[in-house]
Amino acid sequence: MEEFYKSIRLLSYGLFVLCSKMGDKFNGCIVNTIFQITSEPQMVAVSLAKENLTHDYVMSSKVFTASVLSQDATMNFIGRFGFRTGKNYDKFKEPLNYDIFITGVPIIMDYSLGYIEAVIKQTIDCGTHTLVIAKVVGGEITNEGKPLTYAYYHEVLKGKAPKNAPTYFHIPSSKKE
Amino acid sequence: MEEFYKSIRLLSYGLFVLCSKMGDKFNGCIVNTIFQITSEPQMVAVSLAKENLTHDYVMSSKVFTASVLSQDATMNFIGRFGFRTGKNYDKFKEPLNYDIFITGVPIIMDYSLGYIEAVIKQTIDCGTHTLVIAKVVGGEITNEGKPLTYAYYHEVLKGKAPKNAPTYFHIPSSKKE
Repeated sequence: MEEFYKSIRLLSYGLFVLCSKMGDKFNGCIVNTIFQITSEPQMVAVSLAKENLTHDYVMSSKVFTASVLSQDATMNFIGRFGFRTGKNYDKFKEPLNYDIFITGVPIIMDYSLGYIEAVIKQTIDCGTHTLVIAKVVGGEITNEGKPLTYAYYHEVLKGKAPKNAPTYFHIPSSKKE
Repeated sequence: MEEFYKSIRLLSYGLFVLCSKMGDKFNGCIVNTIFQITSEPQMVAVSLAKENLTHDYVMSSKVFTASVLSQDATMNFIGRFGFRTGKNYDKFKEPLNYDIFITGVPIIMDYSLGYIEAVIKQTIDCGTHTLVIAKVVGGEITNEGKPLTYAYYHEVLKGKAPKNAPTYFHIPSSKKE
């Protein structure tokens, strides 16, 4: 049986809308696992669930953007990107503020404090997820405010982790969704 | 000239004491970049500066522990692990509460809410830092409280990033320290 430890839930994260493209199609999803690896050059790592459509877009185009969500972000907005798949729904169809700069990938401006644009340098197969190592090639602070943290999302917004999140708390005794 | 983007500072992190061993010697340092990659099995990634002694200990022993710092942690305590090198100072010499369980590596219990113990599965050379991918083999929640975030450390405790931190904000025009 797989061991699991609740203490891993004490790790702190932010919350982001990560977007990518495949051909002329766009998709995005909510991620919490982006961190900086080095400052010179500015490199980041992000863990992406293989089951997510955005994973395939990132692997195909080798570029992504990540917008830092503000504490003002609504559950409705988070749900639009986080709790439904782009496989049968165009997340960019309904009104949305976004810009396209260096990478050709949309940068979500709604409920966002800033963004980074990144180009993939390496990918590491980690079973259910791919760990993506990428060089930051652009970025800007666009609004003042407090970044939405994963803790705030859980405690104040009462949000849950979708099952593909790296931090999804799998309970071995329950049935798979 | 190396490009740099302030927006990368909007990423959210926790703050941890990461310990490892080399032979019968112990060392530890403060890290902010630990995140979960997969939940099944529970895998984490951490970025370690090659210049840090703890980096060499981790690469040598292939094991580490990470204690999640509480918001109550004092700057004095953080400084003991974060702002001096173990190369010429035994960080375990002064009084300290720690336990040793599965990995043989000390687990810091002072100002800690819980810990994980991890065994390295893969390392990726990222220039100034090594990205370490590790399987969580133990862990426990030991205290109630709020995890110390990197934002709280900066904003409330007025802490700074040491120059080996992945999130150290290098200003290209200034002289190297």
